[in-house]
Amino acid sequence: MNKRNKRRNGKPTHKDRDLSSGVLRVVPLGGLGEVGKNMMFVEYETSDSLDSIIIDAGIMFPENDMLGIDYIIPDFDYIMDRLDSIRGVIITHGHEDHTGAIAHVMETITVPIYATPLTRGLLEVKLKRAHLLDDITLMTVQAGDTIRMGPFQVEFFHVCHSIPDAVGLGITTPVGLIVHSGDFKFDHTPVDNWPPDFAKLAEFAGRGVLALFADSTNATTPGWTSSETVINDAFDQVFRKAKGRIIIATFASLISRIQQVANAALKHGRKMAIVGTSMIDNVKMARQMGYLHIPETMIIDLSEAMRMRPEKVVIMSTGSQGEPTAVLGRLASGRYRQLEIQEGDTVVLSSHPIPGNEEMVHRIINRLIHRGADVIYERIAPVHVSGHASQEELKLLINLLRPQFFVPVHGELRHLHMHGKIATSLGIPEENVAVIENGTILTFTPDSMAVGERVPGGYVFVDGSVVGDVGPAVLRDREMLGRDGFVIVSLTVDHNTHELLEEPEIISRGFVYMPESDDLIQGAQEAIDTVLSANGAGSVDDMRASVEGALEKYFYSETRRRPMVFGIVHEIAQEARA
Amino acid sequence: MNKRNKRRNGKPTHKDRDLSSGVLRVVPLGGLGEVGKNMMFVEYETSDSLDSIIIDAGIMFPENDMLGIDYIIPDFDYIMDRLDSIRGVIITHGHEDHTGAIAHVMETITVPIYATPLTRGLLEVKLKRAHLLDDITLMTVQAGDTIRMGPFQVEFFHVCHSIPDAVGLGITTPVGLIVHSGDFKFDHTPVDNWPPDFAKLAEFAGRGVLALFADSTNATTPGWTSSETVINDAFDQVFRKAKGRIIIATFASLISRIQQVANAALKHGRKMAIVGTSMIDNVKMARQMGYLHIPETMIIDLSEAMRMRPEKVVIMSTGSQGEPTAVLGRLASGRYRQLEIQEGDTVVLSSHPIPGNEEMVHRIINRLIHRGADVIYERIAPVHVSGHASQEELKLLINLLRPQFFVPVHGELRHLHMHGKIATSLGIPEENVAVIENGTILTFTPDSMAVGERVPGGYVFVDGSVVGDVGPAVLRDREMLGRDGFVIVSLTVDHNTHELLEEPEIISRGFVYMPESDDLIQGAQEAIDTVLSANGAGSVDDMRASVEGALEKYFYSETRRRPMVFGIVHEIAQEARA
Repeated sequence: MNKRNKRRNGKPTHKDRDLSSGVLRVVPLGGLGEVGKNMMFVEYETSDSLDSIIIDAGIMFPENDMLGIDYIIPDFDYIMDRLDSIRGVIITHGHEDHTGAIAHVMETITVPIYATPLTRGLLEVKLKRAHLLDDITLMTVQAGDTIRMGPFQVEFFHVCHSIPDAVGLGITTPVGLIVHSGDFKFDHTPVDNWPPDFAKLAEFAGRGVLALFADSTNATTPGWTSSETVINDAFDQVFRKAKGRIIIATFASLISRIQQVANAALKHGRKMAIVGTSMIDNVKMARQMGYLHIPETMIIDLSEAMRMRPEKVVIMSTGSQGEPTAVLGRLASGRYRQLEIQEGDTVVLSSHPIPGNEEMVHRIINRLIHRGADVIYERIAPVHVSGHASQEELKLLINLLRPQFFVPVHGELRHLHMHGKIATSLGIPEENVAVIENGTILTFTPDSMAVGERVPGGYVFVDGSVVGDVGPAVLRDREMLGRDGFVIVSLTVDHNTHELLEEPEIISRGFVYMPESDDLIQGAQEAIDTVLSANGAGSVDDMRASVEGALEKYFYSETRRRPMVFGIVHEIAQEARA
Repeated sequence: MNKRNKRRNGKPTHKDRDLSSGVLRVVPLGGLGEVGKNMMFVEYETSDSLDSIIIDAGIMFPENDMLGIDYIIPDFDYIMDRLDSIRGVIITHGHEDHTGAIAHVMETITVPIYATPLTRGLLEVKLKRAHLLDDITLMTVQAGDTIRMGPFQVEFFHVCHSIPDAVGLGITTPVGLIVHSGDFKFDHTPVDNWPPDFAKLAEFAGRGVLALFADSTNATTPGWTSSETVINDAFDQVFRKAKGRIIIATFASLISRIQQVANAALKHGRKMAIVGTSMIDNVKMARQMGYLHIPETMIIDLSEAMRMRPEKVVIMSTGSQGEPTAVLGRLASGRYRQLEIQEGDTVVLSSHPIPGNEEMVHRIINRLIHRGADVIYERIAPVHVSGHASQEELKLLINLLRPQFFVPVHGELRHLHMHGKIATSLGIPEENVAVIENGTILTFTPDSMAVGERVPGGYVFVDGSVVGDVGPAVLRDREMLGRDGFVIVSLTVDHNTHELLEEPEIISRGFVYMPESDDLIQGAQEAIDTVLSANGAGSVDDMRASVEGALEKYFYSETRRRPMVFGIVHEIAQEARA
């Protein structure tokens, strides 16, 4: 019986099998973006079994030149012919880049999801929206728990990050213990007073770590990431100086930041209003689940806030990434009906622009200043700290665990490269460090790591409600259309002679300002006449091609622009035309 | 005789006139971008005279969402009905954002241009390319010179910046002395050994400064900008460690950086090849003019470099801003025929990404690493320093000059706002600080500054060879086309009944991947049939509108995308159709 058939028939449990002689494979998935951030696949194969787990199911955000794309999901083709082997999906924390693709994944896979309470709550919202909640088993785990998933024993350990209830994973496999840091930083004084689980890391080290997969997001940042508590002082200053309203924008999921604002508001005698659906929902859930401690009397709604004296109010909102449609973006452009920026307002952007968003964030800051606000942002006061470990913390993690093999993940290639250099600087042999890209298969035995082939895969774009239909060809067209627009020429010609019967109709968008381009259009008509009389009557296809060619040339010579040009030719019998 | 006629007839010189009772106006121009960076207008008006000067004539680079725009020139409508008053154009230094619009300006204005030798050299190239060089008087000035321009006496003083031969201006006007810092930093140890002219600044202070206009680019950066010399050590390290070729990318105009690379190459026994037309041209000119000191034997061409041992070569290139078509971008994507990145190459990005370019720069770094290069950039080693003054330098400038009025310029509103705060923190009264936007008229008398109206104006986009035709409407269309593409439906209907005679022809680009969208197109055909049979025969316009509406709705419900939909209706007599 071959392996595949055996898996299909009856799925033997790990207890029945000889597990000692297999290999462990780890594959970071997720297209061409940050390595292993959105999804990782761990599988263990013996001669007669295959078992696997999925870690995280997140989305990437499109880059500025991926026009029209809403978000990107991991390319998980690799998993599709291994569906039977999957023992479960583990989500390390509740951020979009780790949870956002959960509905896409769970449409094809029916296995339990394991997550801590807050993460589970955030996943439930997504699965409900996708009408999948009833079909799926969600298992709540706590940091400190150990669960068995086929041949894997997974220990969840607490890490600090910019959302509560984040975990890292210690995965005991038949070939050894691998540790996955999750997104983490070593914060000794986190807002929720729950420091990282150093004891567990030490214990892992005692047992011997085969491989460490560690967060590289801040691998190019020297030093140690500041504790969340430094923000308390910055907020205290803002609250002491502000004469009018305070408006603080941050990520909707940044629960600890919302707690810090609430603490400052309580101290300085301000009430707190929250705007933005996602933040309202998150605050509600986090309070119910005990992750956020705000007295009921502190929270008011916006209309109430508008009636209070400005110096008695703090408003929390979304939109700190410069998104034009989020609350802060609408405030900046005066398109938020319920609230208007006024002289004396203090606006705080408690966030760091995600790469690619810098320009939009700066634009919003300029607009808020233009409207009279005093704007405080990361550049001018410590109102934000990163949720990811800097170089000294990365060194500490490696030295706490002393892994045999090291794989930097969660970062662009430049971050992984630097993280790899950090590891070798600590004495990990260069050949034991694997700087790899998504889709690369790493194979482990108890004393080896091999970098294998890269499985095919790229970006899977989600645009509107359609997944994966937009590829390079459509993007290239969008780029051309976005740059120079298009021109359509509709020609009506005689069926027999192919002579032009009417003046060509020209439609154009995004090319030139048509109401002021009469001369250009007139010239285009002439170019069409010229090429048609020069070429004589050819086939309809020839006519179309020569007109398109002539117009492309004409428009380029007149404007140095290259709009897409399309010809449509209608043949009619001349004597009978309308 | 009114003022205007008087100016037209015979232009009295300043000596003939009573200049004591006029007002001075200063207007930063340049659309909605960085204030006064690209152009400033200074005019002095009495009851019977108007005299003015233009400072700088630069371009802005488009933001990421200004699709298809090549660059932006200042909106100088304000100047157009004052052409007779202009005494000259002063260019403070040779960077694009101060020189790039010179040809556009000199097409309408025939006055002399005043610039230092290197700046003049760079301007000549531009004017020659625009076939304007023969019509224009270029006057060479040196730092330290004083020239008279109508009622203005202009003193040029040396400043340090990231291009040699940069100057600031002391402009003695009938109402007082105004000082314009130009782009500057206080570098005590510049590469060309020419420190800033502190003595001149002290002298200005002694005479009394009415108003200071100062560079705000780095107003949000604490401390003191590092001297260019710190780069020497960083380069020294790079050259000592590199085992193979070194490729260093920077701005083509950053002459001092090129000198530093040449110095390091000389010290470490490497020959230097330069690639990229603009850098080759600049190096040639700067060497001829004595701004760059590289022995002839040091410089080799690329083909020679390719034949030498890798550790004997350093290659300088353009493309440090991530531009995909510049040398570094082509190296990163393997599209530079003459040179290919290989294992062992060290690539240095000696630059800082201009806001909005971060993503492209990071992408190029990742690609270079992917190709096997070791990439050194600002984030991981001090291989670049800014050319602009940080907060402590800004304070020093203000305290050296102790101006009565202060106007932060050269920055986004957020920079000006911070620079304004810095000035007030030094004791300049808040009401004497003007944080203004482009187009705002400042009026000075010997003891007052008034912030006036904002003259109408916005972005003037240059796209291809056409200036100013692309406005918000075209950009909106480009954005829509870039996001969701378009669909054109060509309908052939009976002239009398308006019945559909043929299956509608559908053309689409940038919307969906057409080869795999048969079902969608089939559905669109059906939607057209449905709406046309439901609505019955209406006018051609009604038909078109209802088909467009039905398709927009259909496509949105199927894909959640909103392509532009256009209908073209051809009426023919049914009995006679081809």
